[in-house]
Amino acid sequence: MKNRKVVIVGGVAGGASCAARLRRVDETAEIVVFEKGQFVSFANCGLPYHVGNVIPEEESLVLATPELFLERFRISVKTGHEVLSVNREKKVVVVREAATGRESEEAYDFLVLAPGAVPLVPPIPGLDLEGVFTVRTIPDTRVILRWLKETQAKSAVVAGAGFIGLEMAENLRHLGLEVSVVEMGRQILPPMDPEVVRPIERLMEEKGVRLFLGDAVAKVEKTGNGKFAVHAKSGKMLEADLVISALGVRPDVSLARAAGLEIGERGGIRVDEQMRTSDPSIFAVGDAIEVRDIVTGQWMLLALAGPANRQGRIAADALAGREARFRGVQGTAVCGVFGMAAAATGASEKALQRAGITDYEVAYLHPKDHVGYYPGAEVLHIKVLYRKGDGRLLGAQAVGFADAPRKVDVFAALLQMGGTVHDLEEAELCYSPQYGAAKDAVNFAGMLASNSLRGDVKLLKWPEEAAALGGCVLDVRDADELEEEGFFPGAIHIPLNELRDRLEELPKGQTIRVYCRVGVRGYYACRILTQNGFDCENLSGGWLTGRDLLREG
Amino acid sequence: MKNRKVVIVGGVAGGASCAARLRRVDETAEIVVFEKGQFVSFANCGLPYHVGNVIPEEESLVLATPELFLERFRISVKTGHEVLSVNREKKVVVVREAATGRESEEAYDFLVLAPGAVPLVPPIPGLDLEGVFTVRTIPDTRVILRWLKETQAKSAVVAGAGFIGLEMAENLRHLGLEVSVVEMGRQILPPMDPEVVRPIERLMEEKGVRLFLGDAVAKVEKTGNGKFAVHAKSGKMLEADLVISALGVRPDVSLARAAGLEIGERGGIRVDEQMRTSDPSIFAVGDAIEVRDIVTGQWMLLALAGPANRQGRIAADALAGREARFRGVQGTAVCGVFGMAAAATGASEKALQRAGITDYEVAYLHPKDHVGYYPGAEVLHIKVLYRKGDGRLLGAQAVGFADAPRKVDVFAALLQMGGTVHDLEEAELCYSPQYGAAKDAVNFAGMLASNSLRGDVKLLKWPEEAAALGGCVLDVRDADELEEEGFFPGAIHIPLNELRDRLEELPKGQTIRVYCRVGVRGYYACRILTQNGFDCENLSGGWLTGRDLLREG
Repeated sequence: MKNRKVVIVGGVAGGASCAARLRRVDETAEIVVFEKGQFVSFANCGLPYHVGNVIPEEESLVLATPELFLERFRISVKTGHEVLSVNREKKVVVVREAATGRESEEAYDFLVLAPGAVPLVPPIPGLDLEGVFTVRTIPDTRVILRWLKETQAKSAVVAGAGFIGLEMAENLRHLGLEVSVVEMGRQILPPMDPEVVRPIERLMEEKGVRLFLGDAVAKVEKTGNGKFAVHAKSGKMLEADLVISALGVRPDVSLARAAGLEIGERGGIRVDEQMRTSDPSIFAVGDAIEVRDIVTGQWMLLALAGPANRQGRIAADALAGREARFRGVQGTAVCGVFGMAAAATGASEKALQRAGITDYEVAYLHPKDHVGYYPGAEVLHIKVLYRKGDGRLLGAQAVGFADAPRKVDVFAALLQMGGTVHDLEEAELCYSPQYGAAKDAVNFAGMLASNSLRGDVKLLKWPEEAAALGGCVLDVRDADELEEEGFFPGAIHIPLNELRDRLEELPKGQTIRVYCRVGVRGYYACRILTQNGFDCENLSGGWLTGRDLLREG
Repeated sequence: MKNRKVVIVGGVAGGASCAARLRRVDETAEIVVFEKGQFVSFANCGLPYHVGNVIPEEESLVLATPELFLERFRISVKTGHEVLSVNREKKVVVVREAATGRESEEAYDFLVLAPGAVPLVPPIPGLDLEGVFTVRTIPDTRVILRWLKETQAKSAVVAGAGFIGLEMAENLRHLGLEVSVVEMGRQILPPMDPEVVRPIERLMEEKGVRLFLGDAVAKVEKTGNGKFAVHAKSGKMLEADLVISALGVRPDVSLARAAGLEIGERGGIRVDEQMRTSDPSIFAVGDAIEVRDIVTGQWMLLALAGPANRQGRIAADALAGREARFRGVQGTAVCGVFGMAAAATGASEKALQRAGITDYEVAYLHPKDHVGYYPGAEVLHIKVLYRKGDGRLLGAQAVGFADAPRKVDVFAALLQMGGTVHDLEEAELCYSPQYGAAKDAVNFAGMLASNSLRGDVKLLKWPEEAAALGGCVLDVRDADELEEEGFFPGAIHIPLNELRDRLEELPKGQTIRVYCRVGVRGYYACRILTQNGFDCENLSGGWLTGRDLLREG
């Protein structure tokens, strides 16, 4: 197997990682990378920030050049070269050089497909107009920046409220534009649960971004004054100087499909644990493949740089006859919006429901990122999902101005290792006044969930309809909190500290649903009630969660 | 066991947690807490910041009052009450009320000792002078603040460079004082390894703190002008308006010892996994007990609030007949100094050596907290220790302006779960440009270590003596880096990109020790050399680690 030739299609995250790793494990292989675009190994995660001038220099986004690959790794990287087809019998690919249009054949012993994903552009009239942009490559940012300058743009409509959509909204706002975001779902950030992202939605509105959720772009038209009229399904019309189409991506499987490789149920290239496709001489990595969700066991698409890099390394190891295997994904991700972060790992509640998994429970909490007595503490909103049967962690989401990624990283590590809520309870994490709390948010999440699994308290998730709660609802906050923050209509109000003396005010025959502000006093109240013979449930996350789950009106 | 009476001695972290948890699991128990000091449940971790006016209001430090304990938990908290002795046969404690001097007996069914630790004050002449302070209680901060004001203090000497010593140094500097720190060890932050904390030492000096390491206070004297003369062992004399004695703490075992309870080899109260002392009716929690180090298996003292709280809960559960058990400690801790954080979990290299553990390897890395192309990236200095036999994580330390606690929290979670360096490699953590990197520092640490364990590269720790390195040392950085950052004397210099073409300049018969700036290019170079028949080792952490490990001169 010495001196074999490996051809890699695509030189961004997975392809570049594969090439570099392969050289480290095999000095003698001939390695050729064909990249359709002008750049290899560029930072596509940075593109929105380049548009927003947070990253002023385009060259900052170029992480490695063909020259570097050649000098350092003896890897031949050919940008502007599109692989048109694969002849698996002859083991050659047909390549077209963009500059000359010349086509040629390139033989391979092994082929690695890392073509990535392409923006999803649904058949909506007008999405093909000049002035409607996707954001996937450095040239994309060039045309956007030129357009912004030439049209002196004052307003933009962003279609789609996923990661790229939100980042573009923030960055365009940062440039001073009026920004509207239109999203089909009833929430931003579709991979997360709706109630978790409400604080980000509120922040965006505070920052002047208009959010149109549960709506969708139906048609984009040029108007007489050089602007666009964006018509929404709801009938609304938004005027803008440019439109960003950020409606997601789909795996680029054109080459794989034409070559007859197996395509999975989610539309990505199907590979085994060593990233091998249905042809043992062909590997595939990155956004173009399907991966296993380790929580639900289902195949999924996940266009993230971290897993792509890991897959690139594993394919290289497999090519070199090593034993590396991809363990699947847990979908850890974070998105920053106006200084707030929304982070998640493992399954969302929506994902569990989609997968038909019902043996789970939800705990909400709203701790501070560090102790309240040290200045600058910020509230974190956390949702944790775990199996009722054995307490195994299934997923966690966190939103806040500080430390959401830190908490989710810890949840991610524990989830990776098969940890349970009892492990969360026992986690020993960094604490000093400016960096945490003696009882860390992770510990609190574990205590909360463990208390429930041990039967000390029943956790109840707030319903979406106020009427669904029914029965006896008890608010144990202090009077001033009800006045300041509102309350659940019809709730009995007894402050926690008075509860023991006022038990006779509560009905004995029915379940009492208790809440406070964040859930702690509700838990204390439940312990008092339970030990006094009442049947009760603690509304998880307290009023801070309730007001975000209950539908308005 | 209904209506039994539980007496708790000490009402700060462990005692207060125990009391509150006990009430939640047992509404009927009579719970009495005796606290010698004026405050219960106060934030002693915040004391240095109160002195520095970062936390201006003293009342911010009081997390709960006797009134709250009574109203919310029906717990009787008696501050200013010192428990003088325990009569185990009669099951009573003798209590003295400070205000009246009156002594009385209090019966118990179960006793929980949570007396905490007291400042270690060695028999150094002058440490008992007025104007020499320890920092352990709220009254301590009152006298310091009064002294600062009344003497218009301009300078301070801090004896001891542990957590409290450094925090006091920062806070006094923050108030504008000239600050000198005298520490017996040759490094600050004794629980960590010396080379890891060098960046913090440099920062302190930049901030105007004078560090006297490897020295110690020998005598403190009042001088004629109302100042103190602090005489060091080295013969140096430092003048100051006040002296902070921060020489560590020792467990307060006076009561336990007098009662004949077992005291362990490290001088703390010995308890079982349920926090039970040698008397089954007496439990002990917090800084006064010995705990098991889960990495080395040894008994240790660890005066930290997190474990104390956890122990308090476990003692309460045990009292209520529940099955909770303390899993031991891994010593996770963080200390902030002038905006930089030093964080650690698990064993330091020093701790491994003390425990006689030799089956370990060290990996150093210096990644950025987030991708370099996004503004504001800060370097992290990380040291990871793992077993050579099976790759199991043994400890991790991180220092930097951003995210050191985040990284160490992840290491802590993985260590807790018995994770290996391969688990670090596969961790799926939060990434977006402002919050991380597609290959996270944790992943890099895992790759580095895994590459070594798989035999792809031999990692070598820099020696302390330049002469110990000997043989052929190869620097693969670019020429300008050598000029800017210095280099190892006598090293051969071949930039990485030229290495393949200049292999004949290297001797074949001997081991080549390779280094670059942080270790990455050194690894690449080693892969080239190994595959070309050379024997080589990569100097872990590159020159950034080397210059901090090599002794000057």
